[in-house]
Amino acid sequence: MSGAGVGRLIGVGTGPGDPELLTVKAVKALGEADVLAYFAKAGRSGNGRAVVEGLLKPGLLELPLYYPVTTEIDKDDGAYKSQITDFYNASAEAVAGHLDAGRTVAVLSEGDPLFYGSYMHLHVRLAGRFPVEVIPGITAMSGCWSLAGLPLVQGDDVLSVLPGTMAEGELGRRLADTEAAVIMKVGRNLPKIRRALAASGRLDQAVYVERGTMKNAAMTALAEKPDDEAPYFSLVLVPGWKDRP
Amino acid sequence: MSGAGVGRLIGVGTGPGDPELLTVKAVKALGEADVLAYFAKAGRSGNGRAVVEGLLKPGLLELPLYYPVTTEIDKDDGAYKSQITDFYNASAEAVAGHLDAGRTVAVLSEGDPLFYGSYMHLHVRLAGRFPVEVIPGITAMSGCWSLAGLPLVQGDDVLSVLPGTMAEGELGRRLADTEAAVIMKVGRNLPKIRRALAASGRLDQAVYVERGTMKNAAMTALAEKPDDEAPYFSLVLVPGWKDRP
Repeated sequence: MSGAGVGRLIGVGTGPGDPELLTVKAVKALGEADVLAYFAKAGRSGNGRAVVEGLLKPGLLELPLYYPVTTEIDKDDGAYKSQITDFYNASAEAVAGHLDAGRTVAVLSEGDPLFYGSYMHLHVRLAGRFPVEVIPGITAMSGCWSLAGLPLVQGDDVLSVLPGTMAEGELGRRLADTEAAVIMKVGRNLPKIRRALAASGRLDQAVYVERGTMKNAAMTALAEKPDDEAPYFSLVLVPGWKDRP
Repeated sequence: MSGAGVGRLIGVGTGPGDPELLTVKAVKALGEADVLAYFAKAGRSGNGRAVVEGLLKPGLLELPLYYPVTTEIDKDDGAYKSQITDFYNASAEAVAGHLDAGRTVAVLSEGDPLFYGSYMHLHVRLAGRFPVEVIPGITAMSGCWSLAGLPLVQGDDVLSVLPGTMAEGELGRRLADTEAAVIMKVGRNLPKIRRALAASGRLDQAVYVERGTMKNAAMTALAEKPDDEAPYFSLVLVPGWKDRP
């Protein structure tokens, strides 16, 4: 479907929060883009947009894609799914309009675009219709273990990336069946995560990291964290690499 | 142990191969380092060193750390473990000598330093003795799924990173128990990996990627790959994200 005059879609990973953790390629792409698109909560511009401030060319068009108000609807509800699907479809068409006009559209995605990234919703709708490039980014988990100076996996280690939303028994089973683990979506799941780590004998190795690579980052051995307060985007890391030569 | 005049150790992730996939922070660190250290096979300079060519300041000291000849010894052999441990100890002391002299030493690590990275062997020996910083890098797996334009994980997906060296039954069990998977160390394990994917019903989704982000990168649906030839650092990706809104 692409041809002369058709624009290019670029998914740009903005990394874990520090602007210096963007890749050289991402910085170049942002400096050349005609349109900058990003998902955000209504009335906010989002973390990805804050990270790239200062890297954008004058006269750049901005296309914020504001999520519909959804906190009052359960995520498993059919109405939510219908509303969010409509929103992603409309967002893709808004981007497609600029691509049809021959513009290069950079879409920001925190962390890495194809690793739990919001950009994926546009990618699957547009990759068959337009020339597309994905520029990988440093993941939040990588930002966190680097900040913590915590060797995560080596050699033949298995790594399991697990959502903290998972049922306690299931989480414990998987923690007992892996050398290393990253537990995401911590937030109010922290008490459950503690219990699953204790049940699988991994609590003593677990490290809690909050806002990795942000200016106000914090980390601690989870067993020594005195409370269960945790923002949604905090992580728990369980390192592997037991037989170090 | 650190004090005035003591140098700084920096673990620098060089990413999957494309020099533009280094982070801005990595480029700065390389430009400021006094000493550049990297592991390499005897007589070679290694992929990491090739990636950073052109980013180094004149007069930089280079400290290649050549692995002892090991291919003729089995990896589970006690003599191998003793020899490689001695090598890592000696390498750490060679780096420590420069740090004691007040020099900033950048250690190259392909991909991400603390994610299966060679740098980890120096980090665990020196992080308690000297000021240390780890600059994360784009992992090979992220370079591969970005190149393939393959959405890997979304929402509450579990991701399992698995070594292709694993026993066939164990690999099949884990592939059947995860939404998404990355299989590393493919090489001559490819026939076994194919069988484990077929047994777990995941072969049709698997994508084979060779030399991701190198100039001669290649990828194909694994089911359509006609032979079992694969370099050691090729990857097999099994994407998750089944319930796309």
